[in-house]
Amino acid sequence: MQAAIFENGAVHLVSKPTPTLGPGEVLIEVRMAGICNTDLELLRGYMGFAGIPGHEFVGRVVAAPSAPQLLGRRVTADINIGCGTCPVCLQADARHCPNRTTLGIAGKDGAFAQFVAMPLHTIHLVPDCISNAQAVFLEPLAAALEPSQQLHLTARQSVLVLGDGKLGILTACALRRLVPDLVLAGKHEDKLAVAAAQGVTVRQGTDAGHIAATLGREFGLFDVVIEATGRPQGLETALELVRPEGTVVLKTTTFAPTTLAMAKVVVDEITLLGSRCGDLRLAIASLKDKLVDVLPLVEAAYPFEAFAEALEHAARPGAMKVLVDFRAL
Amino acid sequence: MQAAIFENGAVHLVSKPTPTLGPGEVLIEVRMAGICNTDLELLRGYMGFAGIPGHEFVGRVVAAPSAPQLLGRRVTADINIGCGTCPVCLQADARHCPNRTTLGIAGKDGAFAQFVAMPLHTIHLVPDCISNAQAVFLEPLAAALEPSQQLHLTARQSVLVLGDGKLGILTACALRRLVPDLVLAGKHEDKLAVAAAQGVTVRQGTDAGHIAATLGREFGLFDVVIEATGRPQGLETALELVRPEGTVVLKTTTFAPTTLAMAKVVVDEITLLGSRCGDLRLAIASLKDKLVDVLPLVEAAYPFEAFAEALEHAARPGAMKVLVDFRAL
Repeated sequence: MQAAIFENGAVHLVSKPTPTLGPGEVLIEVRMAGICNTDLELLRGYMGFAGIPGHEFVGRVVAAPSAPQLLGRRVTADINIGCGTCPVCLQADARHCPNRTTLGIAGKDGAFAQFVAMPLHTIHLVPDCISNAQAVFLEPLAAALEPSQQLHLTARQSVLVLGDGKLGILTACALRRLVPDLVLAGKHEDKLAVAAAQGVTVRQGTDAGHIAATLGREFGLFDVVIEATGRPQGLETALELVRPEGTVVLKTTTFAPTTLAMAKVVVDEITLLGSRCGDLRLAIASLKDKLVDVLPLVEAAYPFEAFAEALEHAARPGAMKVLVDFRAL
Repeated sequence: MQAAIFENGAVHLVSKPTPTLGPGEVLIEVRMAGICNTDLELLRGYMGFAGIPGHEFVGRVVAAPSAPQLLGRRVTADINIGCGTCPVCLQADARHCPNRTTLGIAGKDGAFAQFVAMPLHTIHLVPDCISNAQAVFLEPLAAALEPSQQLHLTARQSVLVLGDGKLGILTACALRRLVPDLVLAGKHEDKLAVAAAQGVTVRQGTDAGHIAATLGREFGLFDVVIEATGRPQGLETALELVRPEGTVVLKTTTFAPTTLAMAKVVVDEITLLGSRCGDLRLAIASLKDKLVDVLPLVEAAYPFEAFAEALEHAARPGAMKVLVDFRAL
């Protein structure tokens, strides 16, 4: 099969053997995949990754010895693959299995390839009403919804989403169903417009300091600030805007060490809550019920042959979602 | 009156006018006070403090125009004095009033003085069964109990207290009533013995790395780790020992910026929870019911005249509680 591999900071398109199925695995022919900022971090050497990246995808089941009813069905999959036997897995949370592999991120070849093999228990059917381009967003949309599974978010709370990148916009659009008055703040008028068009209250600032000052004046301090700026400095702004005893949800995965004035967290008794992958079932329901419109986030689509170009496009500052289309293969 | 003041990194005993009472204030003659690590930080310049420090104290009411029934009663007081009119105060949490002053720490002369004036609503009666030396511990004991007001701690959880300083020991001894099997870890056999004598499971290690390795082997990962080492590096050890989706309670007030690998917090969806002052009513009930024995934490008592010596003693590495006795004044 054809596949993209990352090796020593470069991407190569190569021919590799189609994965052989382990017990309980199904083979999926990838139809479309999305490039995530994590892919760009992997390319830069994060987690010492070498192999096939890609963890946002939709495909068609082409082999399923243990579940023939899946043959031909359109699916996506949980990206965390637990060992299935540890206490964490037995509590049905493979996302935190200490022995897990993560599709296209750690220990498991990913979806920037013609085929991918996944265990049956990770598979989710994609309803016909969700297009391939939409389905690529299921993984990040699940991550956007994850704060709602960790915190009891209510309409009585004041909630701020910081950052108008892909994850910030998805988070604001998704959580607005629970907190209608939430505010999304960022620097880019055009990006904020994507969320505003879906009914999100947006505020633009020229930089972090300006955003903190402007929002502080208009809204005071927030009960919950969801930090999705993608920058280590975002946490500082979040701490300026959260009330004492409030919560900052950390969506930014910063691999560089963050320097933080922890005294404020202690004195103001603030909660910092890390938040990562979510539940694909919630994301599927969200798209099925048309609660979030993800398509305005698509900036470009490239055929797989042009993967290097797609990656370069995704790496441009401010790029929104870049899709990779495998359907011509 | 006689008072100790901090000025430019030095302590002086001075004569100052006895405080005049504002509306609703009572005048307290201080009988005994305790030296806290925060006092030592203030002496080093933290918060640009200049004035009379001291926030752990017990005294006798000697003037109370608006509450004559308090005259002659033995009392202590909440150290956070809210404005009484902001939304935070109206929700009865002066601890987080944005306009608050804090006794002996910020904007309010403290209890290392012959007299201190406090608003009526901060006053707590000290029952006769609680001695002066014990009463000095009410403020830190309330802080030790605070995690139980922020988290639903249960006997089903595995809880680790990191750090065998005064706060770590108080925290372990106090929270053991909710979580009988909690573990206290530190470096000092003699200090750990104080907690062990009160039924706390203790483990000793030579350094942070040794503690993390030893505890990890014996107990695995903990649901809750309460970081009370007093050192910025303690958080790193706490993160090594907390399970995915677990909670690290931050009791250490580090004024230097902390450098932290935030990616672990995000990927493992860990909660970091700042924790500071607590509820004096809980601490009073705890001492009244003899749930915690604070007296073994007393290392020395000095008359007020020897305050500089007391402070020097408290600053010795590993010093436990040093009391300041005003009764000879």
